[in-house]
Amino acid sequence: MIRVAVSGYKGKMGHEVVKTVLREADLELVAVLDKDPTEKNINELTEFSELNVPVYAELDKLLNEINPEVVVDFTMPSVAYSNTKQIIQHGARAVVGTTGFTSEQIKELQTLSSEKKVGSLIAPNFAVGAVLMMQFAEKAAEYFPNVEIIELHHDKKLDAPSGTAVKTAEMMAKTREKIKQGANGEVESIQGARGADYEGMRIHSVRLPGLVAHQEVIFGDVGQGLTIRHDSYDRISFMSGVALAIRKTAEYDTLIYGLENIL
Amino acid sequence: MIRVAVSGYKGKMGHEVVKTVLREADLELVAVLDKDPTEKNINELTEFSELNVPVYAELDKLLNEINPEVVVDFTMPSVAYSNTKQIIQHGARAVVGTTGFTSEQIKELQTLSSEKKVGSLIAPNFAVGAVLMMQFAEKAAEYFPNVEIIELHHDKKLDAPSGTAVKTAEMMAKTREKIKQGANGEVESIQGARGADYEGMRIHSVRLPGLVAHQEVIFGDVGQGLTIRHDSYDRISFMSGVALAIRKTAEYDTLIYGLENIL
Amino acid sequence: MIRVAVSGYKGKMGHEVVKTVLREADLELVAVLDKDPTEKNINELTEFSELNVPVYAELDKLLNEINPEVVVDFTMPSVAYSNTKQIIQHGARAVVGTTGFTSEQIKELQTLSSEKKVGSLIAPNFAVGAVLMMQFAEKAAEYFPNVEIIELHHDKKLDAPSGTAVKTAEMMAKTREKIKQGANGEVESIQGARGADYEGMRIHSVRLPGLVAHQEVIFGDVGQGLTIRHDSYDRISFMSGVALAIRKTAEYDTLIYGLENIL
Amino acid sequence: MIRVAVSGYKGKMGHEVVKTVLREADLELVAVLDKDPTEKNINELTEFSELNVPVYAELDKLLNEINPEVVVDFTMPSVAYSNTKQIIQHGARAVVGTTGFTSEQIKELQTLSSEKKVGSLIAPNFAVGAVLMMQFAEKAAEYFPNVEIIELHHDKKLDAPSGTAVKTAEMMAKTREKIKQGANGEVESIQGARGADYEGMRIHSVRLPGLVAHQEVIFGDVGQGLTIRHDSYDRISFMSGVALAIRKTAEYDTLIYGLENIL
Repeated sequence: MIRVAVSGYKGKMGHEVVKTVLREADLELVAVLDKDPTEKNINELTEFSELNVPVYAELDKLLNEINPEVVVDFTMPSVAYSNTKQIIQHGARAVVGTTGFTSEQIKELQTLSSEKKVGSLIAPNFAVGAVLMMQFAEKAAEYFPNVEIIELHHDKKLDAPSGTAVKTAEMMAKTREKIKQGANGEVESIQGARGADYEGMRIHSVRLPGLVAHQEVIFGDVGQGLTIRHDSYDRISFMSGVALAIRKTAEYDTLIYGLENIL
Repeated sequence: MIRVAVSGYKGKMGHEVVKTVLREADLELVAVLDKDPTEKNINELTEFSELNVPVYAELDKLLNEINPEVVVDFTMPSVAYSNTKQIIQHGARAVVGTTGFTSEQIKELQTLSSEKKVGSLIAPNFAVGAVLMMQFAEKAAEYFPNVEIIELHHDKKLDAPSGTAVKTAEMMAKTREKIKQGANGEVESIQGARGADYEGMRIHSVRLPGLVAHQEVIFGDVGQGLTIRHDSYDRISFMSGVALAIRKTAEYDTLIYGLENIL
Repeated sequence: MIRVAVSGYKGKMGHEVVKTVLREADLELVAVLDKDPTEKNINELTEFSELNVPVYAELDKLLNEINPEVVVDFTMPSVAYSNTKQIIQHGARAVVGTTGFTSEQIKELQTLSSEKKVGSLIAPNFAVGAVLMMQFAEKAAEYFPNVEIIELHHDKKLDAPSGTAVKTAEMMAKTREKIKQGANGEVESIQGARGADYEGMRIHSVRLPGLVAHQEVIFGDVGQGLTIRHDSYDRISFMSGVALAIRKTAEYDTLIYGLENIL
Repeated sequence: MIRVAVSGYKGKMGHEVVKTVLREADLELVAVLDKDPTEKNINELTEFSELNVPVYAELDKLLNEINPEVVVDFTMPSVAYSNTKQIIQHGARAVVGTTGFTSEQIKELQTLSSEKKVGSLIAPNFAVGAVLMMQFAEKAAEYFPNVEIIELHHDKKLDAPSGTAVKTAEMMAKTREKIKQGANGEVESIQGARGADYEGMRIHSVRLPGLVAHQEVIFGDVGQGLTIRHDSYDRISFMSGVALAIRKTAEYDTLIYGLENIL
């Protein structure tokens, strides 16, 4: 059993982390933290009435009294840096989903982790499926330079193409032979038909009600095609990535940035 | 058994029509026509050595001697009009896949068909699946005004969007409530991401080696999606439409233009 | 503006109906009904604090005082029948999503509707997309007898194949030529690979976490394919069907059973 | 320029290899081999009339006179082994698509290759896309134990599930946590609906006219899905794998079995 504490347990994501730790057989919830808690024990919440897990308002007190192996932090950019530093300083592994770290802060925390020989992970995105899609696309682009991306999102999204689509194209650009796609002399009878051009790869953005966040990367070659698709329906999809990080950080002795680097 | 003659039997399409008539249990191949034949009987061709079907060089001789119920014509625009006129004049049903008829010619042939009470069909496109896709899209657009088209073709295709995509959009425009799709204030960070705009509907053209001709019409609504996809791998897909037309024209007493009008 | 009352406004579906009526520009919410209301006006609920819509506990009082054009009923089987009868009796159109009507009750209500010349609709399923998918499949099966169904649901679903898949197959069986599909001498090296056999059509049931309710109907023919897919993410997808029924029942002078009959 | 000879150039695959070598800018066709050739030079064939490439009937003569860097062999099982041995013995790289090698033969050829420090490749399947699909599935199964396979083939295929589907499942079984999929108490109202069971993973085999060879591997997790699809339209899809092997074997100093081991 891995002894896990959850910082920010009253937030949307923190609450999901609590439920994930309770559900996984090899994880044990040993404490939770909130800067301004209304309970002393998590069992004061109806949902968790059968548990017995202390609630803390101060991280150092939690670390000293409970001594967790891992602390998961989904809080606010303003406190995430000092939280992470404190956790690693104490010798516990930090699994951090809060965004907004500067590259200096990350470097500093990596140095600290290496000194303490503590494995930790900071990741802006814990969706294992999305990361795998991008890794697979990067590898396939090495063999199939003809590729287009179709990303599909709900119709309230303001920007096109999506950040994930652009990131996928960037990753493929590293392995893909630089070729111009499509026919020579290709003509758009209605402007925009061939989509956005990213180094010769085309990106198409579909926006429809009912959709959430989806992406298809389609490779074509003589006589064959290869398609990789990721569907994201809900941010709770992050939870399998969090559980993975809680376990996998044990195998490292420094801080890793980005989920892709532990897959 | 429906007694069928095939005009233009040495062309790519005509040759497929011959094979189709031979394969279908309720159709009988009674004669074939070519303007400059090298055989007297189709059994001089190795492929058809076990048959006994006369070859004609002149349509009127074929009509008078054989008296077929249906003549299928896949020839050249230069002769298709006079062929069709002759066939209907004789009282046989014409099923014509040759393109290039003017609207005056079609009207004249319709008048003639009505007088003779002969059912005939001229169709530029015999792909039943593509026609059904367009009909279904037209109907669905009545209930789901939020719709985007993704059409995917081989990478030698010069024009984008495809003719089928534009025709589909035109048909949907007839039933669809005129709304602007996507978010207000939507921004393309790379131009073209949101595709071609056809009356508010977006069309995306994918071009990749290995593909042939494919189209997806994607409807979105709160909590649900509906997608209609057609894949065309080969022009022999036209043959089920030809067989259908051979049978169905029996139910009409005038000339129909367009396969969609008998489905 | 169509004057609409909502019966069962405190239930999950009734609550969605209220929101739908408020959102649609041509619909006006004139009253709501609950058998045991805690409010006198809907504006006592925070969510609807800016409205002014009276709450009723008795249907006849609502009908007499408010005289709505349409009453939408999502209640319990035990009261739905008498509610519907009362609504039609009064001369208002009933749009009913409650299930459990016997065929005798439906016949009786149809007779009553015809006498009163009132258009009404009872539908066990208001998902327009699912109904269109089934209608399109029925039509396509007339031309493409080779068809397989893949239905995909969440992994808590107990029965396979799904009710929708079986209903789709039943509808296709009406128009489809009865043929045996697959190769003669086909062998399953692992039992079940070729799926469930429904009159020669194969049905495949996929069960995975993350999925909700999806179905693909795949038609194949020489050189082409046609696919119809419906994705259902949430029961709120019913709402576009409810709004449609509120409007469309005005065009009828009897009671219709089943959404498919007004599409 | 890599100097390439093609053994078996009159076979379907060998002919495609010749065209591939001619098309690729960094490859040079230096000789071709057939056991019973009717030409002395490939330019006696109309298709290749502008080339000047000698035709050989004996492999050792070709090796000694031409000294190619790579010999590609698509011949018959009866000669492939001795051909491969001779090629490696001579110090040229062998790229072999002929099937039917025993494991003893492969071991012996590997020993010989290592002695000669010659990189070679024998592969029963040169479809890069199919191999990538299987590798990606193997990796994804490590994180997503809930997975089903849908494989779709033409309706003349006798066996179900396909060899590729079973091989994919075998590969996933190595990395996937062994869990039972689907709901407890799941019931098939029509037998076979849930497909073939391979260690808890379900495989569904679709057979329709118009299809060639396609496979989807669908992973599901809470709130997300990941799908990997390969479409194979024609055996010429093997050619990108052959070109890759011609280049990549230069980086090895022994014989590799299986395309997956150089990707």
